Amino acid sequence: MKINVVRNVLDASDALAAANRRRMDQAGVLCINILSAPGSGKTTLLEESLPLLGEGVTAAVLVGDLQTTRDAERLSVAAGQVVQINTGSGCHLSPSQVAEGLDALDLAGLDYLFIENVGNMVCPAAFDLGEHLRAVLLSVPEGDDKVAKYPTLFQKADVILLTKIDLAGLLGYRFERVAEDLAQINTAAPVIRVSSTTGQGLDQWVNWLGRQRGVRK
Amino acid sequence: MKINVVRNVLDASDALAAANRRRMDQAGVLCINILSAPGSGKTTLLEESLPLLGEGVTAAVLVGDLQTTRDAERLSVAAGQVVQINTGSGCHLSPSQVAEGLDALDLAGLDYLFIENVGNMVCPAAFDLGEHLRAVLLSVPEGDDKVAKYPTLFQKADVILLTKIDLAGLLGYRFERVAEDLAQINTAAPVIRVSSTTGQGLDQWVNWLGRQRGVRK
Repeated sequence: MKINVVRNVLDASDALAAANRRRMDQAGVLCINILSAPGSGKTTLLEESLPLLGEGVTAAVLVGDLQTTRDAERLSVAAGQVVQINTGSGCHLSPSQVAEGLDALDLAGLDYLFIENVGNMVCPAAFDLGEHLRAVLLSVPEGDDKVAKYPTLFQKADVILLTKIDLAGLLGYRFERVAEDLAQINTAAPVIRVSSTTGQGLDQWVNWLGRQRGVRK
Repeated sequence: MKINVVRNVLDASDALAAANRRRMDQAGVLCINILSAPGSGKTTLLEESLPLLGEGVTAAVLVGDLQTTRDAERLSVAAGQVVQINTGSGCHLSPSQVAEGLDALDLAGLDYLFIENVGNMVCPAAFDLGEHLRAVLLSVPEGDDKVAKYPTLFQKADVILLTKIDLAGLLGYRFERVAEDLAQINTAAPVIRVSSTTGQGLDQWVNWLGRQRGVRK
């Protein structure tokens, strides 16, 4: 009986996610769900890369946090539209919160919607929000041992960004360790090394975004 | 009705936690629950500080991770006893997992039990495991904006360790921002700046541990 209840809850969540996706498909919006630990650089990545998307390309951000509007305030400079979702004590965004966020956005003429999930390597990985693609960030200071410790997160990634790459030399980061772990669970997702400080790799990330949009048109 | 069910679940969890605490009290063990985001340096802090606890002082570690025994393998060098708890997809340790961990340990003559929780700033904060005290780590590369974004975690801290402090200058870390946020939610917990690379602050952390043990004897 318990298993049935759990399945029903997930079914309802997945049905809401599918409705979100249909709504964005109809509006021609490509939606990327961005997941990582706290402080991996999700907000900074968006701040630095949204201005590089190209002339006339429009982007909105739904940003999830337990408390504060700090990230939304930062993103309001670079993104055309921003909605902050405060989850209170909630450890991940839910498809119903994203549906409310979509209500608050003007989807007409929008090219990209980025969902910046709550900083958490565990819970957000289990919830489809209606996104088309998942970007997972792993910052160099978090360590080179994280892929095998949080496999679900990395298994479901469509692209993996190693962030704060400028610190790799100082911290003795072992890229080969990340590659070995990824070889066991996800060989399809490209791995892009980025630094928002030096700008390294931002072009690769922006090109990847452009290709995904091209493929789906 | 739903609220009753939730309360009962928490009651059961809290009752198990209280039983864990009684068991440790009877054995004369001081238990510290260590919480932080992934990659803040919980394992490294223990590796570096356990050898400094003093002649004849004994410590064990219960370490929680979704997958792998990597942290337990690292800690087995510095700790007398180590138990790895793999939570599978679980986002925090539970009091029942800790009870199983206690079964696997020899508590007689043990001075400290450290619980290294799953790397997650949200879910572990809500669960009493039976610990006496909570240590919360926040690493400098995660950013100086995290206290207000994850208030429950920091509200319930008995001591706060700012880790990887050697990177503060390079990253332009604003300590005053952390202090301002903490002034709103937790003025009782001491804040210790540590670096496992340079050794800075490890003595303060070890002294704090010693005082807590003295107070409770």
